[in-house]
Amino acid sequence: MNIDMIEAARERIGNNVRCTPFLNSPAFDKLASRRVWVKAECLQYTNSFKIRGAWSAVSALAPNRRKSGVIGHSSGNHGQALSFTARAFDIPALVIMPSDAPTLKIDKTREFGAEVILYDRDLDDREELGSKIAQERGMTLIKPFDDNHVIAGQGTTGLEIAEQAAEHGITDADVLVCCGGGGLLAGLALAFEAHAPTLRTRPVEPHDFNDVQRSLLSRKIESNTQKSGSICDAILTPCPGQLTWPIIQRLCGSGLVVSDREALQAIVLGNEYFRFIAEPGGAVSLAAALFRRDQIHSDDVICVVTGGNIDNQLFQKAMDQFGAKT
Amino acid sequence: MNIDMIEAARERIGNNVRCTPFLNSPAFDKLASRRVWVKAECLQYTNSFKIRGAWSAVSALAPNRRKSGVIGHSSGNHGQALSFTARAFDIPALVIMPSDAPTLKIDKTREFGAEVILYDRDLDDREELGSKIAQERGMTLIKPFDDNHVIAGQGTTGLEIAEQAAEHGITDADVLVCCGGGGLLAGLALAFEAHAPTLRTRPVEPHDFNDVQRSLLSRKIESNTQKSGSICDAILTPCPGQLTWPIIQRLCGSGLVVSDREALQAIVLGNEYFRFIAEPGGAVSLAAALFRRDQIHSDDVICVVTGGNIDNQLFQKAMDQFGAKT
Repeated sequence: MNIDMIEAARERIGNNVRCTPFLNSPAFDKLASRRVWVKAECLQYTNSFKIRGAWSAVSALAPNRRKSGVIGHSSGNHGQALSFTARAFDIPALVIMPSDAPTLKIDKTREFGAEVILYDRDLDDREELGSKIAQERGMTLIKPFDDNHVIAGQGTTGLEIAEQAAEHGITDADVLVCCGGGGLLAGLALAFEAHAPTLRTRPVEPHDFNDVQRSLLSRKIESNTQKSGSICDAILTPCPGQLTWPIIQRLCGSGLVVSDREALQAIVLGNEYFRFIAEPGGAVSLAAALFRRDQIHSDDVICVVTGGNIDNQLFQKAMDQFGAKT
Repeated sequence: MNIDMIEAARERIGNNVRCTPFLNSPAFDKLASRRVWVKAECLQYTNSFKIRGAWSAVSALAPNRRKSGVIGHSSGNHGQALSFTARAFDIPALVIMPSDAPTLKIDKTREFGAEVILYDRDLDDREELGSKIAQERGMTLIKPFDDNHVIAGQGTTGLEIAEQAAEHGITDADVLVCCGGGGLLAGLALAFEAHAPTLRTRPVEPHDFNDVQRSLLSRKIESNTQKSGSICDAILTPCPGQLTWPIIQRLCGSGLVVSDREALQAIVLGNEYFRFIAEPGGAVSLAAALFRRDQIHSDDVICVVTGGNIDNQLFQKAMDQFGAKT
């Protein structure tokens, strides 16, 4: 896994993924007491960065193998991305999703054309289930993060950030990354190592799901004890991946942790200051910039807002709780 | 007023205005039965395109005159833009706003630093009030649309659209523009005349406030009988401007009209498909693409979503009425 694979993924992906905007807001800067830049992947196709990894992996398959279809397990963003990509390539897709995934994510994965199978997050092993069905149907399993082509695809976000940061004269910054299994984190870290070595990737996780933070501290793979229990559904992964971990350990700065409540507040402030919609697991980076200021030391901070697939009801609840009453 | 003034405005503005994203969504295309591209000025600084005209006009003032400050009358977006720009230039600003303007707009105009004076939309003449206070205080009045530097600033949106359309291989399209006094419409039309002659600007207005549509039909300036009564507060202007009208008449295609209800639906669909927040007066272009399909004849349509300054309460009302119940 290296920078050449990321550059190659960018070539294969071409215009099928959007170069998302790099937003800032002087008023938000005041709130956060430093300059905050947002890489708004919630404005990406399928409303999350996951389309990058899915497109990279599907486009890398040999056509003969690809035509049998792809299968993925996903809390919903990788699933939508895979479903969307499979339709574009005109191949079948099957997505295994937890039964407690947001309705919007299940609906949209189906709308894009994939077959959806639900599993119980606490009882079933999705990895096992995925491998089993892949074998039965002769489809190729595209894992959500522990796949070099997926990591390479996510890394294309880093190529864009490196260019956008340079355009804005940002020479030194912490890059806060919402982190599940670490596919995006690892891809960004490799991209910055090659193109923007003064940008430091740091994982942000929800309370009780800070396996990557703890792994960085103990210098070995740590796992979460819980499998569910946070609204940040997109990033509730048990532990860093076998492929992502060595990259993360070598290149990433220390982790940050925020609460579900802080993630909801960040969604509301993201809406009010930037006019975009983020989902909880996509807003923890923004929450860290707002609520963990003492753990950030750079004048500029870049938050990757990784997704925007939130159910209307939860969004409304967040607005009721934290939004301006106007 | 010509293309050179628009190019000069772009030079003066530099990076102080954001090149906003040019979004599309395959799922939204299906809904609208054609390819829809959104120029998302709701993601602009101050959350509307008005910052372009304000920055253009303020930066064009002689420094000696500028330091006495600027004054503007505005339903809120021009006011915020002027307030934001004045703070950046470290000069005083005063904004005259209708008392029924959205609370968010009044609050944000004040937050950016301007003094705000409220007037009654039905009883007072804002033009007269503006001129009077400008004279008393020795401040320069920056009109919201009937000012060549303002039109030139808004025209910079057109330079970006011309480039973004070319990047996406769009060779022929109707460009739907939310229209009040026609400053943006006129600026876009001039930019396209010079750089993208196959893009046709067409105004979109709310029911009962279709002065520009009617003016284009009768080939002379027509006025609205009502002054209030639509939620599309940003574009309830009595008639096209003296400076904007000749440009509009010479270059623009026929107008389109949508209802307040359709504008609210467009806000909800803009949120659900693109994950941005538009305000009613900023969403009529998107509403026209959805609900006036038979009046559009190009395969590609470009909607300028001009602003996102909507009160939370109205947004929530729209979501309750038209949003998915998930």
